Amino acid sequence: MRYRVSVLQYEPKFLKQDENLETVQKMLAGLQTDLVVLPELALSGYVFVEMDEVMQIAESVPDGKCFNTLRQIAIDNDFSIVYGFAERAGDLVYNSSALLNPDGSYHVYRKTHLYYREKLFFEPGDTGFAVHPAKGDVKIGMMICFDWQFPESARTLAMRGAQIICHPSNLVLPWCQQAMITRSLENRVFTITSNRIGTEINKDQQQTFTGAAQILGTKGEILARMETTGVGVETREIDPSLALDKSVSSMNGVFADRRPDFYQR
Amino acid sequence: MRYRVSVLQYEPKFLKQDENLETVQKMLAGLQTDLVVLPELALSGYVFVEMDEVMQIAESVPDGKCFNTLRQIAIDNDFSIVYGFAERAGDLVYNSSALLNPDGSYHVYRKTHLYYREKLFFEPGDTGFAVHPAKGDVKIGMMICFDWQFPESARTLAMRGAQIICHPSNLVLPWCQQAMITRSLENRVFTITSNRIGTEINKDQQQTFTGAAQILGTKGEILARMETTGVGVETREIDPSLALDKSVSSMNGVFADRRPDFYQR
Repeated sequence: MRYRVSVLQYEPKFLKQDENLETVQKMLAGLQTDLVVLPELALSGYVFVEMDEVMQIAESVPDGKCFNTLRQIAIDNDFSIVYGFAERAGDLVYNSSALLNPDGSYHVYRKTHLYYREKLFFEPGDTGFAVHPAKGDVKIGMMICFDWQFPESARTLAMRGAQIICHPSNLVLPWCQQAMITRSLENRVFTITSNRIGTEINKDQQQTFTGAAQILGTKGEILARMETTGVGVETREIDPSLALDKSVSSMNGVFADRRPDFYQR
Repeated sequence: MRYRVSVLQYEPKFLKQDENLETVQKMLAGLQTDLVVLPELALSGYVFVEMDEVMQIAESVPDGKCFNTLRQIAIDNDFSIVYGFAERAGDLVYNSSALLNPDGSYHVYRKTHLYYREKLFFEPGDTGFAVHPAKGDVKIGMMICFDWQFPESARTLAMRGAQIICHPSNLVLPWCQQAMITRSLENRVFTITSNRIGTEINKDQQQTFTGAAQILGTKGEILARMETTGVGVETREIDPSLALDKSVSSMNGVFADRRPDFYQR
């Protein structure tokens, strides 16, 4: 099966959700793909200092403006989109991502492992790691940014059948892009890490994001990796069925050889 | 705490256990260290074709000749040794490693995840992943070669308190050395991967080993990495207490932030 996957990288402007949405719309215009992954908090920026800022940009599902605009883009362009957003649920806000499909269906993941000051603004995710069909019935799992630090995140998604792990990120630590190579090859799955670039300063808080968005193959091959300051969309053609092959040798499989009785949970 | 750790790399000669033991004795002579790690099946070679070959070199614990020689070296030189060997236990043989301490104490680990044709000759390990004190009461865990492929191996050892993961190997796949960087930083532990070099041919079977033995810091820093064909011992001074610091940020810890209810076992 031939399947086109894309990763988007850019610099959102803090709290300028309408402007960012317009930028992303232009970046997606005419894109020939089957699945595109955008960053964590793709349209809002990241360095919040006040809860009021978060509430300004948080959206509920399915009636949020950005949510609906992107959902319509997925329908109109016949591709699936994964993007990160602040999800309002009653009085609570989650650091979430959504899979938006061209048939109008959607699924939401709420970030399990919150990084640093995200804990001041977001609830710990309560969805766990589920696998959903994207365009073409390809099975995708979502994890967000710092979830990479915990091998259990990608492991759980892969064990539940994810062929492609979509990984919207706002990376600030130096290790993730290389570690995702291990995540791909220990689980024999494709991984797509979308990242943002730029430095965001808000009062006494500052973060610099590392770019280098990437698409990795099931043996950790770097199929695409953007520059640390690059802006754009990279697309590669993959065969998602390669992720069904879990063999390491003719006598070994990454899941078949697991011995959970010896693993500490 | 200042603690010297060493990794040994060489080319054992197939089935020539006495000659290999002599070579290793020379390599260890005068070594100033606190802990040294040798390869998997360190004294026997690897590419077995007949069970008879395995039985020629398998040793029971604690009466095996190599076991006793190395145990005495540990006592005489006041350092701990970790090495891999074929362990005979009644009619069964395990692909094992031993920690030999200068006070004469020892601990055996039996490889959990057997690679490829090892399954024809060795029993799957039944010890699980335990943590033991080495010289200076530093807590070490053992895993062997292909155990690296399973994040649960290092995870379990680290969760049980390992400060240094000793990883005797006979690596033939291309990924391990880089993946161990992830193993170190996802668990914030030191890892020492000893490897062998050379190509071993036995009848219709052949393997080429990848060298590049290495010592990694708790954030995946490469403290030492040998050449792919290098022979020798590399020693580095570390502070094992760094492995007690599991923080990623002032608000995050690699274990404190785990959410096992969401992890598939």
